[in-house]
Amino acid sequence: MPVPARIDYETGKLRITTEFKISISEVISPRLTPGITRMLLRLSGRTGLFLTQKQITNPDNDPDAGLQVSCKRAGKLELSESESYTLKVTPQKAYLNAVTDLGALRGLETFLQLLDGDDQGYYIPAVTIEDYPRFPWRGLMIDSARHFQPVEVIKRNLDGMAAVKLNVFHWHLTDDQGFRVESKQLPRLHQMGSDNLYYTREQIKEVVSYAADRGIRVVPEFDLPAHCTSWLVGYPELASYPGPYNIADRFKIYKTSINPVKEATYQFLDTFFAEMAGLFPDNYIHIGGDENIDDSWDQIPEIIKFKKINGLKNNHSLQIYFHNRLAAILAKYHKKVIGWDEIFDPKLAQDTVIESWQGKEPMFHAVRAGFPCILANGYYIDLMQPTEYYYGNDPLPEGSSLNDSQQKLILGGEVMMWSEFVTPETIDSRIWPRTAAIAERFWSPPNIRDVDDMYRRLDIISLQLEELGLTHERNYPMLLRRLTGNHDIEALKNLVDVVEPVKEYERHQRTQYTTYSPLTRVVDAARPDAQVARDFQRLIRQLLTDKMLDENKLKEAKSWLLLWKNNHNNLLQIIKQAPVLQEIKGLSEDLAKIAAAGLEGLDYIQTQKQAPDQWIEIKMALLDQARKPRGEVELMIIPAIRQIIEAAGEM
Amino acid sequence: MPVPARIDYETGKLRITTEFKISISEVISPRLTPGITRMLLRLSGRTGLFLTQKQITNPDNDPDAGLQVSCKRAGKLELSESESYTLKVTPQKAYLNAVTDLGALRGLETFLQLLDGDDQGYYIPAVTIEDYPRFPWRGLMIDSARHFQPVEVIKRNLDGMAAVKLNVFHWHLTDDQGFRVESKQLPRLHQMGSDNLYYTREQIKEVVSYAADRGIRVVPEFDLPAHCTSWLVGYPELASYPGPYNIADRFKIYKTSINPVKEATYQFLDTFFAEMAGLFPDNYIHIGGDENIDDSWDQIPEIIKFKKINGLKNNHSLQIYFHNRLAAILAKYHKKVIGWDEIFDPKLAQDTVIESWQGKEPMFHAVRAGFPCILANGYYIDLMQPTEYYYGNDPLPEGSSLNDSQQKLILGGEVMMWSEFVTPETIDSRIWPRTAAIAERFWSPPNIRDVDDMYRRLDIISLQLEELGLTHERNYPMLLRRLTGNHDIEALKNLVDVVEPVKEYERHQRTQYTTYSPLTRVVDAARPDAQVARDFQRLIRQLLTDKMLDENKLKEAKSWLLLWKNNHNNLLQIIKQAPVLQEIKGLSEDLAKIAAAGLEGLDYIQTQKQAPDQWIEIKMALLDQARKPRGEVELMIIPAIRQIIEAAGEM
Repeated sequence: MPVPARIDYETGKLRITTEFKISISEVISPRLTPGITRMLLRLSGRTGLFLTQKQITNPDNDPDAGLQVSCKRAGKLELSESESYTLKVTPQKAYLNAVTDLGALRGLETFLQLLDGDDQGYYIPAVTIEDYPRFPWRGLMIDSARHFQPVEVIKRNLDGMAAVKLNVFHWHLTDDQGFRVESKQLPRLHQMGSDNLYYTREQIKEVVSYAADRGIRVVPEFDLPAHCTSWLVGYPELASYPGPYNIADRFKIYKTSINPVKEATYQFLDTFFAEMAGLFPDNYIHIGGDENIDDSWDQIPEIIKFKKINGLKNNHSLQIYFHNRLAAILAKYHKKVIGWDEIFDPKLAQDTVIESWQGKEPMFHAVRAGFPCILANGYYIDLMQPTEYYYGNDPLPEGSSLNDSQQKLILGGEVMMWSEFVTPETIDSRIWPRTAAIAERFWSPPNIRDVDDMYRRLDIISLQLEELGLTHERNYPMLLRRLTGNHDIEALKNLVDVVEPVKEYERHQRTQYTTYSPLTRVVDAARPDAQVARDFQRLIRQLLTDKMLDENKLKEAKSWLLLWKNNHNNLLQIIKQAPVLQEIKGLSEDLAKIAAAGLEGLDYIQTQKQAPDQWIEIKMALLDQARKPRGEVELMIIPAIRQIIEAAGEM
Repeated sequence: MPVPARIDYETGKLRITTEFKISISEVISPRLTPGITRMLLRLSGRTGLFLTQKQITNPDNDPDAGLQVSCKRAGKLELSESESYTLKVTPQKAYLNAVTDLGALRGLETFLQLLDGDDQGYYIPAVTIEDYPRFPWRGLMIDSARHFQPVEVIKRNLDGMAAVKLNVFHWHLTDDQGFRVESKQLPRLHQMGSDNLYYTREQIKEVVSYAADRGIRVVPEFDLPAHCTSWLVGYPELASYPGPYNIADRFKIYKTSINPVKEATYQFLDTFFAEMAGLFPDNYIHIGGDENIDDSWDQIPEIIKFKKINGLKNNHSLQIYFHNRLAAILAKYHKKVIGWDEIFDPKLAQDTVIESWQGKEPMFHAVRAGFPCILANGYYIDLMQPTEYYYGNDPLPEGSSLNDSQQKLILGGEVMMWSEFVTPETIDSRIWPRTAAIAERFWSPPNIRDVDDMYRRLDIISLQLEELGLTHERNYPMLLRRLTGNHDIEALKNLVDVVEPVKEYERHQRTQYTTYSPLTRVVDAARPDAQVARDFQRLIRQLLTDKMLDENKLKEAKSWLLLWKNNHNNLLQIIKQAPVLQEIKGLSEDLAKIAAAGLEGLDYIQTQKQAPDQWIEIKMALLDQARKPRGEVELMIIPAIRQIIEAAGEM
């Protein structure tokens, strides 16, 4: 995962033993040899083999080596650089060939994913792969502003990205709730705008270099003219409305903006971006541009006057003026611009990338005007939709009305990890494993879209991602232990296994959160795309569509329902000692009730008796009640129980 | 944990609600207010309460606040500074008073440990505590040389240390296998001595400041004159034997040393320690001094001649000469010296601290000569002994022959985490929770030594330590998943729950390890002090010593034995796909066999029939066979089964 562009399985196995070696004929970059050393460590870690080869530092042209790597040149970390590779594995030897070292790194990941074991030991199956990405811009955005994410969180996610062949780390570094980069030139930005949680310049360099080692570009985002409260804490004179300002601690859309009509603003931004351009080597800098709702632009005389004098007929025009000025500054420092939908203007430089958070139609609109675009809309993983939802979202869906050259302007897409509700403890469980499936959407041919097969493979990749330090699996029981205050989490886990956090923006609506609110409750432990519920749903669907009632499936369904039915009493004992769980007491009770209803329904079905209308009515009312989220989580087995009840009524 | 010097429980509960506040009348240091803010976050995290108080940045003298903190002055981070505090909790309010902010931080940890819940919500029980440490030097040593431990590993362990009131982080930064500090003055040290895994100066400052915030001193160790191969890679001209040198990748004691007779050595060390003295603010620098076995000191003419000229009658005298020269350099930079037993010499400055890795007798010897000492011997947690073993080791045992003023020279002790066999993935499970019990030995009165009660409390603190990011619990199932390559780890877990890594230095003897060897096998997943085995052992002891056979205990014992008996077949299925598990196949089979023997034995006992001698003989032979470690782990339920078999023979 992602599935290669072309893969042919052949017969035979290349055995991996302690003698296994990787050889490289020529060192063409400082990137590939440490990449191979990391691969050897991961291979050794997964197999427990004491490999005799410890690292590669020099050309090591050993014709007997099990994996022969070759590539022609060092890849440039820029848009549309070649990442293609071919991998041929025979029972005797494997050959990885690529144009660039980037392609070779991608191929090494594929090689490691192919590792398998049998009673003879470890092996790579014989296979011929030709592979290259469908889209050149395959990103993950992490918002470090709303909840700061320390360097180790970023690094382990970069490792995860590399494992699934993502190649752009979009780093949302500033927002109302925090300014997260040290600025030597304008130190009040991070000193007053960050509660002391920011990345030092050295840390930024460390991350950029870590990403580059893995063939990942780092595109920093400095969101302007709105979303900038944290800038204004230290520099209130730049604000449209007079300050003073404090760091925002709520998650609403703030009416703050940088003043677009003052020359001082542009001098300030020139100083700032000169420094940032030196810190971030990528060709692109993301300038934000979204959600500017500052009504000061209609109220401050100086701004009103400026619009009139310059013939800017509305605030949008003024914003475009601002972005054009900013783009000119960035051009001085040899940077191209990427920004959200709102920056779109036909007069922008034609290499400006529009990132669409608003939808495909706005994106197509920009494409038709000749601008390269990437899609963010539909990849908001913070909104807690199941993997399938994101996996089905194609940046360039079949049957679009774009012509060939327009289609080429769709550069790819980005996964969005906004951080209102994530801490370093929980962020990985929001990003992974779902992002692996989206990465496949960006890399693999468009016809790869079998959802069941995706979930099967996702389950495997999820464990492999753990090797890289990602915590999406391991932190789940840890969070449950904290909630129970105890090692005994079984009853709580039985419940939380079948709930998910509420979707879209519902969490904001239910509770007033600040940046200080605890993110350690059931809703934070609960994971999107609850697997137990999903498996149960599939089981019931199969059970009820089979022509003959399958005894094994029936037994399995009943044992799940019985577990849930009996769970509430056990959980009640825990809740008594753990007040933090009070909020899901009703939900637990409802789970028991609907599980009981499911059992009764299965009895009707098994005995081929039709359930009475009144019974159905009562049970459906029960389901309606159970649907109500409590503690901002919702039960995910309700559709399955509904199917059972409906089927019981049709016997 | 650690148990306070004096604690009196009273009646009533101080309720903790969203309105709970902490107030501080005077800000006497930059340490306490962030400490209180961290405490509020942890309190909020554990309870899920949306506390209205978000942080303290200024004096906040609110007479209604639930916890009133007061202290007189900023503590100095140096030996024997006051860490005492009193904590009085009434149903209305709590009062924390301390001389220094260090004492206040210790008291805040106690306050948080007291948090409990009932069906009314969270509360702190009414209590009066007077508390102070028994020993002023309570350390944890982490070896970052043999396996590098990134900054986040160090930070989370500093948090763990603070939670159990340890106050010295002894940082073993250089050894044969790596030089882990950036040196601006002598850059080949880290550049050539570290495989690029070292702490930058900025990272060192970050760690020192992070520790200081938590009231923890950082004592760096630069081990000389031996254990220094990594120094010599970049500066071979300083070696006793001529180079060149490579970074050591084995774990033997290397015969390398810095040349003690060259003036250039001392010029080099002067430059080096001038820089390090600026980087590490603590009064003490650890100069190592252990295990100098370099026979070059008997073979290099220059050194032989030097000894003769200077009347140094043996290598020990030469080493003492070296340490005295080094101590003089450190004195220039206002640093005192701490070193291992081998540096002991009556002519050293009397404030030199001797750290005894060799034993209590060598320590008492130094104490009698008037030197302050700390104990490391008996706290080597890398040697995988059970918690009880370390807990019972008192730096100043009852009945020692030391007089009062000599006793005062025993400053405390340090937990030793040597890193031959730990990675960032596994190091926490070696340090925690056992270190919490040792911390109690260093802090609490000497009569606190009830082992069962220690284990009961250890289990609770272990979960609380997870809140700080420590991974000792959560990484266990993760490592098992990697081994099975699957989410299904039950059969493997059943086995690994009752094994422990081999003890002492046996692992070195069984396998030839290098710094590149995988540390991802069963032995690395297995944890010291296997709790399931310990609990089973206690169960059997109780079962067999009760006058009447307790039916419930018998049932419980049988169900464990049945589980183990039936486990092997399930595990075999997993082993087939996971070659890394082949090494414990025999062990798994033996577990099944001895469990079956245990079941048979219980049947004899239950039916009050005496087991025949031949049966006993066969089963005892089985146990002998099962004792053999496989894959460097050993079964820990053998003594319990042996008890059963013996009891069956005595019916």
